[in-house]
Amino acid sequence: MTITRSAVRRDPGYLGLTRSIAALPASDYFDAAQYARELTQIWYRNWLYVCRSSELREARAFRTFTVGNQSILLVRGEDHVARAFHNTCRHRGAALCQATEGRLPPAGIVCPYHAWRYSLRGDLLQTTSKQPADDFDPKDHSLYGLPVTEWNGCLLVSLAQQPPAFEKGFDLPISRLDAWRMDTLTVGHRSRKTIACNWKVFWENYNECLHCPGVHPRLAQLVPIFGRAILEPKDDPSWQDHATDQDPRYTGGLRDGATSWTMDGNPVGVPFPDLTADDHKSGHIYLTGLPSIFVVGHMDYMRIVRILPLGPELTEMSIEFLFLPETLAQRRDISGAVEFTQIVMGEDAQICEVNQRGLHALPHERGVLMPEEYVIQQFQDWVRAELARP
Amino acid sequence: MTITRSAVRRDPGYLGLTRSIAALPASDYFDAAQYARELTQIWYRNWLYVCRSSELREARAFRTFTVGNQSILLVRGEDHVARAFHNTCRHRGAALCQATEGRLPPAGIVCPYHAWRYSLRGDLLQTTSKQPADDFDPKDHSLYGLPVTEWNGCLLVSLAQQPPAFEKGFDLPISRLDAWRMDTLTVGHRSRKTIACNWKVFWENYNECLHCPGVHPRLAQLVPIFGRAILEPKDDPSWQDHATDQDPRYTGGLRDGATSWTMDGNPVGVPFPDLTADDHKSGHIYLTGLPSIFVVGHMDYMRIVRILPLGPELTEMSIEFLFLPETLAQRRDISGAVEFTQIVMGEDAQICEVNQRGLHALPHERGVLMPEEYVIQQFQDWVRAELARP
Amino acid sequence: MTITRSAVRRDPGYLGLTRSIAALPASDYFDAAQYARELTQIWYRNWLYVCRSSELREARAFRTFTVGNQSILLVRGEDHVARAFHNTCRHRGAALCQATEGRLPPAGIVCPYHAWRYSLRGDLLQTTSKQPADDFDPKDHSLYGLPVTEWNGCLLVSLAQQPPAFEKGFDLPISRLDAWRMDTLTVGHRSRKTIACNWKVFWENYNECLHCPGVHPRLAQLVPIFGRAILEPKDDPSWQDHATDQDPRYTGGLRDGATSWTMDGNPVGVPFPDLTADDHKSGHIYLTGLPSIFVVGHMDYMRIVRILPLGPELTEMSIEFLFLPETLAQRRDISGAVEFTQIVMGEDAQICEVNQRGLHALPHERGVLMPEEYVIQQFQDWVRAELARP
Repeated sequence: MTITRSAVRRDPGYLGLTRSIAALPASDYFDAAQYARELTQIWYRNWLYVCRSSELREARAFRTFTVGNQSILLVRGEDHVARAFHNTCRHRGAALCQATEGRLPPAGIVCPYHAWRYSLRGDLLQTTSKQPADDFDPKDHSLYGLPVTEWNGCLLVSLAQQPPAFEKGFDLPISRLDAWRMDTLTVGHRSRKTIACNWKVFWENYNECLHCPGVHPRLAQLVPIFGRAILEPKDDPSWQDHATDQDPRYTGGLRDGATSWTMDGNPVGVPFPDLTADDHKSGHIYLTGLPSIFVVGHMDYMRIVRILPLGPELTEMSIEFLFLPETLAQRRDISGAVEFTQIVMGEDAQICEVNQRGLHALPHERGVLMPEEYVIQQFQDWVRAELARP
Repeated sequence: MTITRSAVRRDPGYLGLTRSIAALPASDYFDAAQYARELTQIWYRNWLYVCRSSELREARAFRTFTVGNQSILLVRGEDHVARAFHNTCRHRGAALCQATEGRLPPAGIVCPYHAWRYSLRGDLLQTTSKQPADDFDPKDHSLYGLPVTEWNGCLLVSLAQQPPAFEKGFDLPISRLDAWRMDTLTVGHRSRKTIACNWKVFWENYNECLHCPGVHPRLAQLVPIFGRAILEPKDDPSWQDHATDQDPRYTGGLRDGATSWTMDGNPVGVPFPDLTADDHKSGHIYLTGLPSIFVVGHMDYMRIVRILPLGPELTEMSIEFLFLPETLAQRRDISGAVEFTQIVMGEDAQICEVNQRGLHALPHERGVLMPEEYVIQQFQDWVRAELARP
Repeated sequence: MTITRSAVRRDPGYLGLTRSIAALPASDYFDAAQYARELTQIWYRNWLYVCRSSELREARAFRTFTVGNQSILLVRGEDHVARAFHNTCRHRGAALCQATEGRLPPAGIVCPYHAWRYSLRGDLLQTTSKQPADDFDPKDHSLYGLPVTEWNGCLLVSLAQQPPAFEKGFDLPISRLDAWRMDTLTVGHRSRKTIACNWKVFWENYNECLHCPGVHPRLAQLVPIFGRAILEPKDDPSWQDHATDQDPRYTGGLRDGATSWTMDGNPVGVPFPDLTADDHKSGHIYLTGLPSIFVVGHMDYMRIVRILPLGPELTEMSIEFLFLPETLAQRRDISGAVEFTQIVMGEDAQICEVNQRGLHALPHERGVLMPEEYVIQQFQDWVRAELARP
């Protein structure tokens, strides 16, 4: 459409921005010092999704997890409580576990260098010095502990000693996904991709659908309101004109005849039994936990998408597809869900790289947020607030 | 020869240096901060050669061109005027064109991210927001335009809004090459090479022939004065002793019997019809446009050599060989010109890498310029002046 | 053993630390600026082992050697004296020699760029300018000379003009190895390995045997005192209890029946004829020359181990195995020595990488030195003192 200005008073229910908003400085998306600040202020202070609890199931199972230059060791205690530590011995700093997963011996956590031995709670039990110095107190040399949370079968960890309340890290009450009973679900497929963009570019792309008609033709067909370049009915300034229209172009939700996010719109898995009619109708419920994950519930499968920053202009995206155990037990063909996701998120990855490439232009101080990009404004306000934390 | 000092008063026509000149600091050739300054002060402020106009011939043809971390979009308008822009959308900074060349749709320049649409003059014609904010003025969001010049069938662009007058970027009046009618010529061969040296090392090597006898044995045979380690007769302090000698060792120009810069000295192409007897005799006319190109006219072909800095110690060199259209139409064998150039410029590339490797020595603060290196002094003065520009 | 504190007064002969010592800051092992300081203050100021003298045997033989970003040229003069220079021409800084080894022409050192010619003593003999400027004095343009020492058939060089006395760079009087007559020995095997650790991590690992029981099971068997996690009898706080015990667990030296550091404990080479009974009994004599080498004498072979820093977290280790000429002339099978060393030093390389990996943990300011690590304390004191040098 041609650009027109409007002097019309917008409806108070309207969600979009009513003035042009200056985006973050363009250099924040590639400057190395800014990247270091964001690691420290954001990635090393909030909750980060690591993996499904089922990947750390047995007593003494361990996993290592890397974010930025920090290596974290997660351990399942004999008491079945998950605990996390910096993966570093207190003696001379050796890495305790080298593998990404495995099982500890009954003796506990034993450093491979000088065999200092720690309990699964991180207490130093033994050194190998014949007679430590008089002033040596093992209590001063416990492993550096880190907070862990298990939620719905998901393991989260934080590098901050006192992270914010875990629930507050999400954009909706986490109970919103209760009907999916995530803790009972099983991972049916995993994928991983490296994207040549800053991690914030990923989230900004995630937070708007202005790009959907051009970038995601297939998704725009499945979810007709996305084909209108908006996420929600009230993103449209003239939403009231269609307030009673039941066409999914105006209500949101899937196109007529489709029930799930798959290649043909049909479910690939056994439907979740406890979903409401509204859950079915919407076709997707998104829950976002900045800076590292979003979770999507569909009627027959869920997705957990995690990102990790690998550098100022490099980000890793991992996707887990979760199903009811019976879906996998029945060996159902889940490829229609996997393929659909790979198409859509492949398109996102590619367009994020396009966005990143253009940010270096000398005169480009910053972009401008358009009305439909109000969730990006919220994201950028969050980034600014995190960076301003003392 | 053995080093001897001379108290003899040198001839006033003598071109060489009469005292030892301190070269630029050695660290200027590898220090990352210095490299960044030179990008900003030199590469982002002067005219840069992009490509032949014939590579952007049709209306709506486009090319992208990268220098340092800047991506430039060149577009041929419907009015056949070439225009250039930063390759960046004004919305959220996406790169507009991903390919190095192609053709735009009739609609104009359409951003692949949110489909903002610009005219070929860079005006924002359309956004995809249903109703932009009241304060949104498309005139504030035109593409970032850049100056373009077409000269003799060559496209040049500058990242500065107000670059110096294009003609002043060359060391000779650009009319010096008029007889070659460059705009009518056709590219018969292209080559590209990456050289592990600072871009200034390339130009310094280009600006002296002291290295010719040892580094370029074949060239030193073809152009006998180069075999004497000088570029011009008056580079020799005793030039007057040979002022009337017609041997090409003293006059410059090609060895007897040779007429062009080729493997056997014979032309490979149809001779340019409008050259003067002097043009034929000299065998080569060089025109230098710092920091990015030099152009050489021979009697049957031309070369355009472009360099681009890829890093503090990495430079790209591209060569285009230009011929009269009839040379190519007649399918003449041009390999004798191409091969000769590849030998000579391959030798230059290799010796530039040798020069670069030695510059890091701790006590080596800077080199010394010898009498024959007076053009290097001019080059270094130019570098200093560019860096001192406000 | 379980950690117990002791109020017992330790024996004055005891070598171990009697209080907990704070190690160097963890960031000193990966910070780029600290690495640059250590290059300047330590690697560019002390003696560095280059190669065996036999690798620079003939008059006019040359070798190049790189440390950090410095390239050094070693030349054997016609007078058979070894000399070293920065590998940089005084004219415009070209690298003089490109190969790692070779032989110079009778003319001397000729720069490949403009053919400046230097004597093997570094004096500038000739430029190629027809008439250098009046103020040009060749004496001002000699090669940048560097100190060289030959000791026992080893070539050492320093990047400092006035390095400390060469002998003081070793931890023992260098005469300690006289009986091996190193200058007469021949290299029978060489190996090289890149280790992903800071160079200091390598030396710290070298300076303690707390890690031996766990990391070096085979070595701990061959040298039983190492199996007790100590280097020397008096590293044990209760050494007096075993002062008269002749078991090698308490005396040091090889296990009963073994005579050399080989796979089966038997010598692979002809024994050195001049060793004392004590030399035989100890099984190894170590001489350490920080920062670049240690030399070990066994009864039938020697090892020279050199390290070079390649980056903040990257180090190169080279090993030369030296034998009596008759060992090699008789084509004896030396693999039992080579293999044993490769196992032990491969274990060291691997555990150094484990140590390096753990050092980045945010809360890990520094490690703690345990009683057995008193030689590490000496090493770290040396590092601090070197860094504090004006």
